[in-house]
Amino acid sequence: MCGAFITDPLSESIALMPGEASGVDFAKSPVTKGGDSHPFSHAAPMTYDPENIFAKILKGEIPCHKVYEDEQTLAFMDIMPRSMGHVLVIPKAPARNLLDIAADDLAVLITRVQKVALGVKEALGADGITLQQFSESAGGQEVFHIHFHILPRWDGVKMLSHPAPKADMAVLAEQAAKIRAKFA
Amino acid sequence: MCGAFITDPLSESIALMPGEASGVDFAKSPVTKGGDSHPFSHAAPMTYDPENIFAKILKGEIPCHKVYEDEQTLAFMDIMPRSMGHVLVIPKAPARNLLDIAADDLAVLITRVQKVALGVKEALGADGITLQQFSESAGGQEVFHIHFHILPRWDGVKMLSHPAPKADMAVLAEQAAKIRAKFA
Repeated sequence: MCGAFITDPLSESIALMPGEASGVDFAKSPVTKGGDSHPFSHAAPMTYDPENIFAKILKGEIPCHKVYEDEQTLAFMDIMPRSMGHVLVIPKAPARNLLDIAADDLAVLITRVQKVALGVKEALGADGITLQQFSESAGGQEVFHIHFHILPRWDGVKMLSHPAPKADMAVLAEQAAKIRAKFA
Repeated sequence: MCGAFITDPLSESIALMPGEASGVDFAKSPVTKGGDSHPFSHAAPMTYDPENIFAKILKGEIPCHKVYEDEQTLAFMDIMPRSMGHVLVIPKAPARNLLDIAADDLAVLITRVQKVALGVKEALGADGITLQQFSESAGGQEVFHIHFHILPRWDGVKMLSHPAPKADMAVLAEQAAKIRAKFA
């Protein structure tokens, strides 16, 4: 019966990484794989790479379609939007993901995520919001500076799966302007 | 070209609601649907239903496989896990979703989400974490008490899509005990 889920194309919903291409039946996996041997909390801790693409956006080395900024936070359009108005919210302080960000920084970040989500929803007239955050490659992460995905949603409209096609930059600029106006 | 995405089964990744069954090309939708006419912030605000299933869990009227609890927070196993160790984290204070929760409550909640995520990852030896939060039906929400989904992930193992099959309660109890032990 579990085989039905393995071959169900829907099960690829968050299959972001090439390594996830093979179906594995988690229900038959051991309950633990050795809680003391995984890399994050022990021997080889994951580190922050200051040359990741979001760090470069923060340094101004790479442009973005900014929708919100304050002392601690930057929010900008995802250039491969999985829904119209797909926005990323990041802290300015370096952190790899949910597993290493300082709790205080995370608390500030999520309140900015909420603020931006409300602005995006209002600006684009969305019916709902899907929020996602991926930690480590296994969790779906591709850029290793923590980021929350704000995906505006409309009744009856599906999200695209990753990777979605690159957006028209003029359209992104127009959407970003609409969203920014909510914070002016 | 967009038609290819509409018929791509992967695009159903977060297709939780029956109303989402029909594909609609968001790229061809108007940029706004009337920012002043959507129901959340105006005429008919969404309200909190104190009889939702998570409110009943908080009142002890429905059991759960608890993994963590403090004065403000409860975390328990999702009974239809989309990955092994799928946990839900909710605040005790009533709130419908990201769109109405008090910012202070949200800040506390996300720090508990982080704490529980680290505990789950350690307890089950996961390689990563996928975090999700759905607001309103269009956003994928089905229970209208705000909750964050913590989905432990392993390299090469896909998540199941919603709705996943109901778990074996003995297995959930065993996993919950392993996770609870991280907070003892």
